[in-house]
Amino acid sequence: MILADLGTVIFWLEILGVAVFAASAALTAARKQMDLGGFALIATVTGIGGGTVRDLLTGAAPVFWIAQPVYPLVCIGTAVILFFAAPLFESRYKALVWADAAGLALFCATGAEAALKAGTPAIAAIIMGVISATFGGIVRDVLSGEIPLILRKEIYATAAAAGATLYTVLRIHGADLLPATIAAFALCFVIRSFSIAYGVSLPVYDKRPARDYPDRPAN
Amino acid sequence: MILADLGTVIFWLEILGVAVFAASAALTAARKQMDLGGFALIATVTGIGGGTVRDLLTGAAPVFWIAQPVYPLVCIGTAVILFFAAPLFESRYKALVWADAAGLALFCATGAEAALKAGTPAIAAIIMGVISATFGGIVRDVLSGEIPLILRKEIYATAAAAGATLYTVLRIHGADLLPATIAAFALCFVIRSFSIAYGVSLPVYDKRPARDYPDRPAN
Amino acid sequence: MILADLGTVIFWLEILGVAVFAASAALTAARKQMDLGGFALIATVTGIGGGTVRDLLTGAAPVFWIAQPVYPLVCIGTAVILFFAAPLFESRYKALVWADAAGLALFCATGAEAALKAGTPAIAAIIMGVISATFGGIVRDVLSGEIPLILRKEIYATAAAAGATLYTVLRIHGADLLPATIAAFALCFVIRSFSIAYGVSLPVYDKRPARDYPDRPAN
Repeated sequence: MILADLGTVIFWLEILGVAVFAASAALTAARKQMDLGGFALIATVTGIGGGTVRDLLTGAAPVFWIAQPVYPLVCIGTAVILFFAAPLFESRYKALVWADAAGLALFCATGAEAALKAGTPAIAAIIMGVISATFGGIVRDVLSGEIPLILRKEIYATAAAAGATLYTVLRIHGADLLPATIAAFALCFVIRSFSIAYGVSLPVYDKRPARDYPDRPAN
Repeated sequence: MILADLGTVIFWLEILGVAVFAASAALTAARKQMDLGGFALIATVTGIGGGTVRDLLTGAAPVFWIAQPVYPLVCIGTAVILFFAAPLFESRYKALVWADAAGLALFCATGAEAALKAGTPAIAAIIMGVISATFGGIVRDVLSGEIPLILRKEIYATAAAAGATLYTVLRIHGADLLPATIAAFALCFVIRSFSIAYGVSLPVYDKRPARDYPDRPAN
Repeated sequence: MILADLGTVIFWLEILGVAVFAASAALTAARKQMDLGGFALIATVTGIGGGTVRDLLTGAAPVFWIAQPVYPLVCIGTAVILFFAAPLFESRYKALVWADAAGLALFCATGAEAALKAGTPAIAAIIMGVISATFGGIVRDVLSGEIPLILRKEIYATAAAAGATLYTVLRIHGADLLPATIAAFALCFVIRSFSIAYGVSLPVYDKRPARDYPDRPAN
């Protein structure tokens, strides 16, 4: 029964993470004025992308959403709703950044959990958490020609790494799934929120900007 | 014998789809003035990319072309031919858009078929059809720095979704592979062609364009 | 014992290839002024990306670094070192191009070896070598918004193809792993170096540049 409960909790956490990433993608699609098919495609790839990569890397193919089409259906439903509701947002860009932050904070925990369940070492679990959390957003930004959020000044990959590390440490030391998830979510989301809200960034490498390519091909 | 026939039909449909996607990639390489190695690499990744992702997602690795190198050889051969023949096209961009349309229409059917054969639910088969059909072109456009076709105004993902849906519905209701493929190909290709030829697009989300990033990193 | 030796040689070759690709990515991160988390993420994805794709395509998931976290740790360590050491380079761009060349030359051999060991035909082994060698750099450039090296004028994919072909031919004709790797590394690296140093390129398709999109979407 406790197992059933845990399964239910994981299921709803995943659904929530998938939905917020799908929403962030639909808001990107709105910015790019795509049609409904474009909304649905980019929302689906973004929403289930992180979990798909996680399943591929851990050897868990066929990937999760093939037997459970509820996940892509949630993405498509989210896309349809936002196709009509997006004009209600005063700033679609702000809304998408916050939806992305929620997905990031959820997936750094669920990604690490999947790796730990597959019996990986702690360091691999942390990396899997970071990859699961960031992959959907990367694909969304690359597909839509936006500057990837990981390239912007605020703390992004570092927040996911903090959440995934906390989650893994807590779980290895015997914490239950739900409190560990809440703690990791909170840590990642607070770091990311603080950075978004106040424009806080970690020290970056250097103030010398990249020079352009010396002989950029003509295109 | 009927099985052998079906296998042969699927084989030639796949070869055809792979070749037209490889051709679309080679025409992109021509636009970007790549050398012969660049032509071959981008044609191969584009031609076999959709089927590779399909195999990975359904857990059918090692992927199809590892045991059947005829597929990458078709891509490389297409690249070599177009390296010399591309100047014959009056508009390389138009030729690549039409080659892409043919590949899209073929792969939305063959992708859905692969998923159905793996025993997936209908909705997962439709999504797999769309992903198989669009992935090669997305990779081609991302690698070559072109604006992805799914971002342009004409109907693209929606055409693939229509074809994959029709294919899945027909097959679930007992249609044979070949007529279902022809019907799905026709539906997807007609929608896409109409949109290309007349610049027809679905209603897009909104006329308000994306604002630029407020604090774009200097690069 | 000879097997153990071979295993050790392969291990260190892989570590070396992973480290130089991670270094090329960290130098890209420096150009883009990322923070330490960004350095670590892009170095890890670039360093282990080629081998990850190779494992996925050959059906060897869970991928190599999940049980051997030394690989991502090498990437993260390289990223941390270069976060502080990158200002020492007179030209970070030149350093990254040369690190990329070393990784390319190593991975065209180790990628082909992995495919041959999995029992693939020669042509598939060559293609796998090229994909392993080029994938990490492609991901690095796409993630960081740089123009992919395969799109620049110098010989790139062609050098990897030459190295992978030589490696496969030598191994099929009975050469041992180490001499075959050295020969393939040397061929690929010399071709690439010559092209970088002297700006030598293969004849490209045509002098007519790509026209712009006729109706570029407003973004």
